[in-house]
Amino acid sequence: MPAEKYCQMKKIFVLLPLCLPFLGSAQQKTAESLVQYVKPIVGTQRMGHTYPGATVPFGMVQLSPETDTAGYVKDGKYNPDVYKYCAGYQYDDQTIVGFSHTHFSGTGHSDLGDFLMMPTVGKLLLNPGTAGKPHSGYRSAFSHQNEVAEANYYKVKLDDYNITAELTTSARVGFHQYTFPKTDRAHIILDLMAGIYNYEDKNVWTYMRVVNDTLVTGYRQTSGWAKNRTLYFAMRFSKPFTNYGNADYSKKEVYRGFWKKFNQGDNFPEVAGRQIRAYFDFSASEGEKIKIKFALSPVSMDGALKNMQAEVPGWDFDQVKAAGQQLWEKELGKITIRSKSTDDKQNFYTSMYHTLINPTVYMDADGSYRGLDQNNHQAGGFTNYTTFSLWDTHRALHPLFNIIEPEKNADMVKSMLAHYDQSPEHMLPVWSNSANENWCMSGYHSVSVIADAIIKGNVSFDANKALDACVTTARRRSYEGIGFYMDMGYIPDEKNGNSVSSTLEYAYDDWCIAQIAKKLNRNDIYQEFIKRSQNFNNVFDAKAGFMRPKLADGTFRKQFDPLSTINEGFIEGNAWNYTLYVPHDPAKLIQLLGGDKRFIVYLDSLFTMNLPDKYFAETEDITRDGIIGNYVHGNEPSHHVAYLYNWTSQPWKTQQRVRMILPRMYKPTPDGLGGNDDTGQMSAWYIFSAMGFYPVAPGSDRYAIGSPAVDGALIQLENGKTFSIDVKNQSDKNVYVQKVTLNGKAVNRSYITHAEIMSGGSLVFYMSKTPSNSGFTVVD
Amino acid sequence: MPAEKYCQMKKIFVLLPLCLPFLGSAQQKTAESLVQYVKPIVGTQRMGHTYPGATVPFGMVQLSPETDTAGYVKDGKYNPDVYKYCAGYQYDDQTIVGFSHTHFSGTGHSDLGDFLMMPTVGKLLLNPGTAGKPHSGYRSAFSHQNEVAEANYYKVKLDDYNITAELTTSARVGFHQYTFPKTDRAHIILDLMAGIYNYEDKNVWTYMRVVNDTLVTGYRQTSGWAKNRTLYFAMRFSKPFTNYGNADYSKKEVYRGFWKKFNQGDNFPEVAGRQIRAYFDFSASEGEKIKIKFALSPVSMDGALKNMQAEVPGWDFDQVKAAGQQLWEKELGKITIRSKSTDDKQNFYTSMYHTLINPTVYMDADGSYRGLDQNNHQAGGFTNYTTFSLWDTHRALHPLFNIIEPEKNADMVKSMLAHYDQSPEHMLPVWSNSANENWCMSGYHSVSVIADAIIKGNVSFDANKALDACVTTARRRSYEGIGFYMDMGYIPDEKNGNSVSSTLEYAYDDWCIAQIAKKLNRNDIYQEFIKRSQNFNNVFDAKAGFMRPKLADGTFRKQFDPLSTINEGFIEGNAWNYTLYVPHDPAKLIQLLGGDKRFIVYLDSLFTMNLPDKYFAETEDITRDGIIGNYVHGNEPSHHVAYLYNWTSQPWKTQQRVRMILPRMYKPTPDGLGGNDDTGQMSAWYIFSAMGFYPVAPGSDRYAIGSPAVDGALIQLENGKTFSIDVKNQSDKNVYVQKVTLNGKAVNRSYITHAEIMSGGSLVFYMSKTPSNSGFTVVD
Repeated sequence: MPAEKYCQMKKIFVLLPLCLPFLGSAQQKTAESLVQYVKPIVGTQRMGHTYPGATVPFGMVQLSPETDTAGYVKDGKYNPDVYKYCAGYQYDDQTIVGFSHTHFSGTGHSDLGDFLMMPTVGKLLLNPGTAGKPHSGYRSAFSHQNEVAEANYYKVKLDDYNITAELTTSARVGFHQYTFPKTDRAHIILDLMAGIYNYEDKNVWTYMRVVNDTLVTGYRQTSGWAKNRTLYFAMRFSKPFTNYGNADYSKKEVYRGFWKKFNQGDNFPEVAGRQIRAYFDFSASEGEKIKIKFALSPVSMDGALKNMQAEVPGWDFDQVKAAGQQLWEKELGKITIRSKSTDDKQNFYTSMYHTLINPTVYMDADGSYRGLDQNNHQAGGFTNYTTFSLWDTHRALHPLFNIIEPEKNADMVKSMLAHYDQSPEHMLPVWSNSANENWCMSGYHSVSVIADAIIKGNVSFDANKALDACVTTARRRSYEGIGFYMDMGYIPDEKNGNSVSSTLEYAYDDWCIAQIAKKLNRNDIYQEFIKRSQNFNNVFDAKAGFMRPKLADGTFRKQFDPLSTINEGFIEGNAWNYTLYVPHDPAKLIQLLGGDKRFIVYLDSLFTMNLPDKYFAETEDITRDGIIGNYVHGNEPSHHVAYLYNWTSQPWKTQQRVRMILPRMYKPTPDGLGGNDDTGQMSAWYIFSAMGFYPVAPGSDRYAIGSPAVDGALIQLENGKTFSIDVKNQSDKNVYVQKVTLNGKAVNRSYITHAEIMSGGSLVFYMSKTPSNSGFTVVD
Repeated sequence: MPAEKYCQMKKIFVLLPLCLPFLGSAQQKTAESLVQYVKPIVGTQRMGHTYPGATVPFGMVQLSPETDTAGYVKDGKYNPDVYKYCAGYQYDDQTIVGFSHTHFSGTGHSDLGDFLMMPTVGKLLLNPGTAGKPHSGYRSAFSHQNEVAEANYYKVKLDDYNITAELTTSARVGFHQYTFPKTDRAHIILDLMAGIYNYEDKNVWTYMRVVNDTLVTGYRQTSGWAKNRTLYFAMRFSKPFTNYGNADYSKKEVYRGFWKKFNQGDNFPEVAGRQIRAYFDFSASEGEKIKIKFALSPVSMDGALKNMQAEVPGWDFDQVKAAGQQLWEKELGKITIRSKSTDDKQNFYTSMYHTLINPTVYMDADGSYRGLDQNNHQAGGFTNYTTFSLWDTHRALHPLFNIIEPEKNADMVKSMLAHYDQSPEHMLPVWSNSANENWCMSGYHSVSVIADAIIKGNVSFDANKALDACVTTARRRSYEGIGFYMDMGYIPDEKNGNSVSSTLEYAYDDWCIAQIAKKLNRNDIYQEFIKRSQNFNNVFDAKAGFMRPKLADGTFRKQFDPLSTINEGFIEGNAWNYTLYVPHDPAKLIQLLGGDKRFIVYLDSLFTMNLPDKYFAETEDITRDGIIGNYVHGNEPSHHVAYLYNWTSQPWKTQQRVRMILPRMYKPTPDGLGGNDDTGQMSAWYIFSAMGFYPVAPGSDRYAIGSPAVDGALIQLENGKTFSIDVKNQSDKNVYVQKVTLNGKAVNRSYITHAEIMSGGSLVFYMSKTPSNSGFTVVD
């Protein structure tokens, strides 16, 4: 019976949610598909480094087209394309090379792109060709008119072959559906050489075993960004191939005379080598669909096959697509927003989508996974994850998970602790990827993720063991200046290229450790680390008014350009931005910078100054749009900066800046991201900020209040409660918060707490076009 | 109480074995150590291709010194040294490069040599140096005076460093004991690049993880003779190293900027690369022993560590050595011989030793192993073996195992059936090695091993399944001419370089299949294969009197040199020798060759003709001594030939030839083997022949009677029974058998049967210096 009629019949039950047209919350929206607002194409143009292909939330498989890839070196020199093709797809390209099964989302470093598949017809070409000479290889022209990119669904017409390719996935299985024209020369190419961040020595080894005429298993070993990585596969065709073969493009081969009994390129079922491209031949009737299920495993070929059987036993493409989109609905539905603007909904749910891709599941369906120690392990009661871009994601992504994905976030912490147990350096992960540590970026920000979980009560792991792991990591003297930092309170500039930013980041991380120690009553550790957390003071040059490289003799380095990011003691940031990196003690920072007024001037200057052109050239991973004045939103160290006004007498400037940043940095278009999405951190910043609050210092239970850009939001908590946000009088002009109430009571401080959210309740913002102190009378 | 006194006291029990001084058997010898007669140094000079190092029976570890190794190509050309260094050790060399953990025994193809270790003192040199410039690298001079090679024990003084190195093993663990001079610069080098049959592209990848200051784990992947091979290790030092490091000798490396946080060559615990050499530093007091336990696993590093814990939990070198030698005593003791000649005992027990090395255990202590399908498997109720050189070993080694090692031989069959299950070509092994098939040599002789086991009743596997595997293998049309063979009854010379020898070998193998089918009442299969077994007739040229290459049109190839082994349609043999390769139907062969008299002339000619020099040059893997006339004992196809006289009117010539071959081809000296020992086949020929009988056609239950060279032998059977051989009046001149009795009854035929042996009993040979028909009145 239609709901409308039901309500008429049972007027007494008119308050039943079923009938409620509007309850001041987003509840009525739950019936609406949120997947429709996800635009995976966002960020695929310029520097977003996202990919348009198919994946499920946190999926091991990210099945997406490559328009090109690049190696680090070309003609003996650095190849800038290696950066451009981090995700293998650039919107402006004209051809598609094929569809591979693994992709980083929004990273600033290339890798993955495993197991590239490409359907073709006609003459068999085993090389990919080039963008300049596309017909010399198997790649095909395509156009965006014939392209569909949804959450867990990608479709494109390959113009050169008149083939429609469709892709969908489950967590561990990529599902291809290729619709062929009538042909007796259909080929499906499996290029085991191909990869993102590819060059000769990346491919260590590949193995392929043709089990029968519909099943192929194998593995690929690479030494790329992950130095020592193996990925196993099992591939099943919906239709027997009539013929198959391969070519080995490696230069040399060990002599094996007796193997010549077979033509190893032709229908020979055991293929092994460094540079292999394989093909499988079919004939097809007009419009015939040939489907491939391609399962991955970090453990074994057997594991991949079992993953396939567990997740995709049948051949119904639409069912797999629908199941994956249902998973997305469930995850996206954890926050339902109200907004008059479709663009805003697309921004919001595309951001949600991007936050729910990483970290990725790194474990077979049966719980076995390859550990950092290169042994296989069984995950005891948790899901093992990889792809931890922690320098980025500790800031807002993991805090977001502590609200909407606490169980998964606890499993991520367990994965980090397993990494620690398996680490011969006895360190928590820095940037871990596929059972490898690549030591990317600075700090030991695992401790921030762990502290945030513990402080927020999301602790299904052994908190004391976790604290020990944090402490051991933070005392690893041989790691990037920690010894100097421990002995001298800062890292001397002579000893480390990132001496200042590392000192600042360690100080924040140490504060996180102190917070855990305090909560666990481990006072000796608290004392040690709360002291270390003040080390930021040691690199502040009061004369210059900036954090500044300091020499071993205690003097500041003479050469100093606070606008430059190169050789100035900072990583991905300049002194102007990084000076503000004291998220755990803004009060002290304000004091260092001369007090309330001078601090406000500093912040205002940052956002409004005219950065000379030469400094843009230094920031390679963000577009010019990614910079506002000298505020660099495309790089993470400034992500908390707009919120620092909350610690001043002018909190409304936080509201103003946030509402300026949101529409400038996030658009629902291919070029909509101002910089790398950084495995979801950029998008997590959007989610928090659009809802009106932000975790300035993860490890604290507080969220700084900003300015919500939606009309309302309802957060479905895993504990069964809901937290609603209602924004009165919100508009592009009404960006200032007049007052805030929580469960009907005025909030007289510039923050809300995690406990307040998790208890459920109703947060109401009253917006205005006039700046005020927002009713924040308590400064803390 | 002394036995003598006991016997005096209890005279009534005088027949108790305890008191028996001599019972016409070798029983009284059981107290004597047989290990003392094993000389592992035999065959290390010239072409024996054995190694002098330590191993236990069928051990996974063969820990032995390398004096040098070679790659297949040198300066762009074939390098003959690759053949010379099949086992890594040549007696005439002056330096030792190090001690590696895996070696083939007596093969005609190089491989293995994994994980080379070398202790040094003084300046650290990480390259091995060359024989010509030994001081340029870590190798050391040594002399045979300071060298001891026993079963499971090897000792040598490294003159350059004044270090005494001792080696022993358990099945899966190599145990090193290095006695150092006083030094603060002791190094133990682990060369992960080194290997036998080594060149640039053989090393696919190596990984090493320093778990702590006494434990290192890792693995090595190679693509050598085994195309796709990984071997895992765990290495434990008896004393913490003070420092460690490595160098990567590979030419290129993928860029990983953040790894530069560490000096990866110095005390960095995670090492991965193509060409790694590592070192561990110690200081040592005068005479200090530093010990290393080095465990292997085909499955995982965890597996290697578990193997170490299971087999060698402690640090007592002498105990491990003694335990391994005790295993040898047990195996060697399965046949105790009587002989007046120490040389004969050394020949016999060194031969026994060489027969009990291969196949090798390829499974962890917990039963897991890497299968041919590159997946890990659990062996269900059997020990999994590898190193199956079946073209060699089906002839006498596996038949010998059916007598003295039936349980292990049945497990070897089970391993072959597992290989079949895992084979994407659905074939039984041809030459399998470390979860790889290398297709070496010709035929499908697994079926001979399986038939021999089934016919002799050694069947703890599924015989019908085994028959199916045999049949499927034998019908693999795409494999080396089988399709032609099935369609035409022979392989046309145009289609295959070994057309004649393959036709002959397939015919024999098919007869084996027919024997199984007959026993299992599978009449259709019997009919098919007994017919195929007569295919040898199709390549016999009656005009020439030889087996001869035949063209597809049915005519014999015109160009034909029956003395040449090159391009004449045979593999490792010429027409003169290979024409006699009809082991399953000598009667028919005699008929083809013109009847009894002409056949005897043929055989006599083979043994006595003068082979022109140019033909010696063609037989690269045997010394000139390995050839008698034109009879090539160093290659296996003639191993049954001396016994063929038994099918003629002059069986005494078998006795004469065998007694001529034995002392000429087997000597207890470094150069004592006339050709490659071929993983024990040459030695198995010795064991059988020295005891007076030989399995001419494995798959038959008969052993052709020859001429025993020992005075007696006692075979301890696994069923608890004993079979004794007593040889009356045996001497170098009394080589002719006058008569034979079995359990007191005259044997009037030229063979005994397997059942007769396995029932236990007493075989007595009466020897004479005069030839006779030996009492063989029944011709069969």
